[in-house]
Amino acid sequence: MPLWTVYHPPGAFSDDDKAELADKITDIYGAVMPRFYVGIVFQAVEPGNLYIGGKPNGKFVRMVMEHIARSFPDIAASRRFIDRANTILKPFVADRGYDWEFHIDETPFDYWSINGHYPPKPDTEDERRWREENRPSARTHD
Amino acid sequence: MPLWTVYHPPGAFSDDDKAELADKITDIYGAVMPRFYVGIVFQAVEPGNLYIGGKPNGKFVRMVMEHIARSFPDIAASRRFIDRANTILKPFVADRGYDWEFHIDETPFDYWSINGHYPPKPDTEDERRWREENRPSARTHD
Amino acid sequence: MPLWTVYHPPGAFSDDDKAELADKITDIYGAVMPRFYVGIVFQAVEPGNLYIGGKPNGKFVRMVMEHIARSFPDIAASRRFIDRANTILKPFVADRGYDWEFHIDETPFDYWSINGHYPPKPDTEDERRWREENRPSARTHD
Repeated sequence: MPLWTVYHPPGAFSDDDKAELADKITDIYGAVMPRFYVGIVFQAVEPGNLYIGGKPNGKFVRMVMEHIARSFPDIAASRRFIDRANTILKPFVADRGYDWEFHIDETPFDYWSINGHYPPKPDTEDERRWREENRPSARTHD
Repeated sequence: MPLWTVYHPPGAFSDDDKAELADKITDIYGAVMPRFYVGIVFQAVEPGNLYIGGKPNGKFVRMVMEHIARSFPDIAASRRFIDRANTILKPFVADRGYDWEFHIDETPFDYWSINGHYPPKPDTEDERRWREENRPSARTHD
Repeated sequence: MPLWTVYHPPGAFSDDDKAELADKITDIYGAVMPRFYVGIVFQAVEPGNLYIGGKPNGKFVRMVMEHIARSFPDIAASRRFIDRANTILKPFVADRGYDWEFHIDETPFDYWSINGHYPPKPDTEDERRWREENRPSARTHD
């Protein structure tokens, strides 16, 4: 549900870094939804292919997050999420001398499909089962 | 108008697979709009760069579809589209042992440009001409 | 704030082309907001990985623009922006024999973060300072 796209300089993150970062990001969402909902794509971008402010930039991490399974009920909820994301990101970006930016888009819950299934509504019995089993299966309720 | 981004494991799809899949996807849209509206970007992602549920995953196809030319009039219409997309995708994903997920976003019709033209409104004379000629041209109506 | 993703044929743009194009794109936004808001990702796509109308295409430039800091107040404003973008793009696409297409999405201002900061509202004292200094800093106002 959330799909994170992470544009980063080549070599910014080792395989271990990616694994640790992905695990921590997934923990945020996993507190309330199936962990397998969380997709993260790391894309290395050469400095000459990432421009910030009209200049090539080899010290910038740009992320895009697409949220589907949940939408923020209010600004306060979005601030808590964003602050938490920044706390997780800090050791991977600020502490290594990278600038970073992200924005979140919310897309329609109904226009979403996993392995041919329509994911169950939030906080339903079906979603709880998906979360416990950490895999999609046929819904038992509409 | 629709722009599909297909993140897939390296080697998952041959050139022939991509051609066949692209053709079938384009057929869905081509029934009602110009075929050249359909853009598909295939992006191979190394398993270490695609995380699902906090784990690197080399057996997952993640797609994002951006819809511009048409928006779904209701949920039933979106279900028909999604079910049809899954039918087309099945031989390329499920039948090969890949998990798959996609979500659709809808973006504003007016904020869209092809070869410097503003695409004509759906089901107008201009759009029919674009569809018949399968290329953009100056609009004869507003 | 705006994030441009530019899918282009390998070799379509030299480093100098990218720098010139990025500078001109950034100028559009820089007239009203901090230049460092403008992010551009160039992604070369092999012809066999970009399908337009169901056919592989090595002569097509597909762009996606995500707008965050500002939303268009009306259609007229969006037309001015799109026409200006096309004027800038023309020498890089039409004049070189490439077809091109772009669409713009607008995402929520509040779901956006730069270096751990929430960017200031448009046309505030804080935003003017960010623009003058061309870097983010702690906000002095809410």
